[in-house]
Amino acid sequence: MSSAPAKTPRLIPETRPTSAIQMVLDTIVYRTRERLELINITRDLNDVIRRHGMKAGFVIVQSLHTTTAIFINEFQQALLDDMKSFLEKIVGRFEYWRHNDPRLSECDRKNADSHLRAMLLGHTVSLPVRNGALALGGWQSVILAELDGPRERAIQVQVLGIPELPER
Amino acid sequence: MSSAPAKTPRLIPETRPTSAIQMVLDTIVYRTRERLELINITRDLNDVIRRHGMKAGFVIVQSLHTTTAIFINEFQQALLDDMKSFLEKIVGRFEYWRHNDPRLSECDRKNADSHLRAMLLGHTVSLPVRNGALALGGWQSVILAELDGPRERAIQVQVLGIPELPER
Amino acid sequence: MSSAPAKTPRLIPETRPTSAIQMVLDTIVYRTRERLELINITRDLNDVIRRHGMKAGFVIVQSLHTTTAIFINEFQQALLDDMKSFLEKIVGRFEYWRHNDPRLSECDRKNADSHLRAMLLGHTVSLPVRNGALALGGWQSVILAELDGPRERAIQVQVLGIPELPER
Repeated sequence: MSSAPAKTPRLIPETRPTSAIQMVLDTIVYRTRERLELINITRDLNDVIRRHGMKAGFVIVQSLHTTTAIFINEFQQALLDDMKSFLEKIVGRFEYWRHNDPRLSECDRKNADSHLRAMLLGHTVSLPVRNGALALGGWQSVILAELDGPRERAIQVQVLGIPELPER
Repeated sequence: MSSAPAKTPRLIPETRPTSAIQMVLDTIVYRTRERLELINITRDLNDVIRRHGMKAGFVIVQSLHTTTAIFINEFQQALLDDMKSFLEKIVGRFEYWRHNDPRLSECDRKNADSHLRAMLLGHTVSLPVRNGALALGGWQSVILAELDGPRERAIQVQVLGIPELPER
Repeated sequence: MSSAPAKTPRLIPETRPTSAIQMVLDTIVYRTRERLELINITRDLNDVIRRHGMKAGFVIVQSLHTTTAIFINEFQQALLDDMKSFLEKIVGRFEYWRHNDPRLSECDRKNADSHLRAMLLGHTVSLPVRNGALALGGWQSVILAELDGPRERAIQVQVLGIPELPER
């Protein structure tokens, strides 16, 4: 019940005076296999960072489709199954949706549920880069949610950073 | 059921060595018309990018109110109506909420539902800029959700980018 | 019902030609007190911005745990209680979840609900900095959601900006 100031913030600073910030924009294409599928894309994101030699900075990851999403969580099989059944429960695929009604919509994919699930999960994530990799917490993975597969899907990865750490 | 490594990532890189990164911060004001309304702001965001001559970089879009939200989806009328009825179902306006109870709260707008819906949709979105425009997927629009209108509302648009593409 | 183009956008531009963009990455550690707790971290974020003398730019705030989240809303006690009861209702702690089932999962925290609630709220927020502080709306606070406390928790704060406003 309490949300009192229950905190003693402690700071671990790390400053990076920046000389030449670089910007890169990559696209990664996935071939998904299920209608509702969760894909760990952390390694692919780190590959982009590494390929461009970025040491510090940040990444914007963007799902390029309205029926895919990007979010952060633990990538554990039992939990992934929970996420899927939760999404299926909270937005019922076979409820009445106007987007699936041929009198109201030209969309023939009957994927209103996919759109609404993506709306809840979100389409972009921004993350710091440290020591040449995503600065994620120990249990965190970046997850691409396929919500209307199987299809070919693309994400965009923008890295803005510095290739070399400055001397301190 | 499977979320096996169902992917064959393919890469389409596009590198932009950056010389002079510029930063701009704009505010756009909207006059909304409904209590629950979804507004396509994609064109207005692209206008900001174009006005400042930004060719590559990224944009942070931020709703400046607790009862508005910013998200990405397809802007199709039947689907917009589904989004609204979904939001109305998942957070009932006339359920008991402490924020609407005059014994517990000084807020007289009775808008707890608006706050909770905004919490689900989110207040900020970050997106790459490419070729002088938002690098969105083909069906993607950036949508401002008015959740307690009609009112005058503002969003902030920050662009960080480079005015000219470097020679390759 | 209508989501017609109910808007008359009005623009308030503010341009900042940028000379030397700096990048800093800080970690803030919190000691939480409840299982489900909402903590206003706005002041701590502004302290990071101030300590590094950043005048304009933007901030990426990231929760470093899968069972914490970062979001924006009004920090009002009655509303915070509504947020908590909404999260408790929408993802039931004691429903059957595979992640809590010792036959399917090695996790002994029984915290599937915490993961799913974090999935809905999100792990990162990006915000502009203006005049040496977060450029938030009048009622907006940045909130850290502890969803499986009490524990020691960390967030990352990345600031990318310029220390001095250029002459106009």
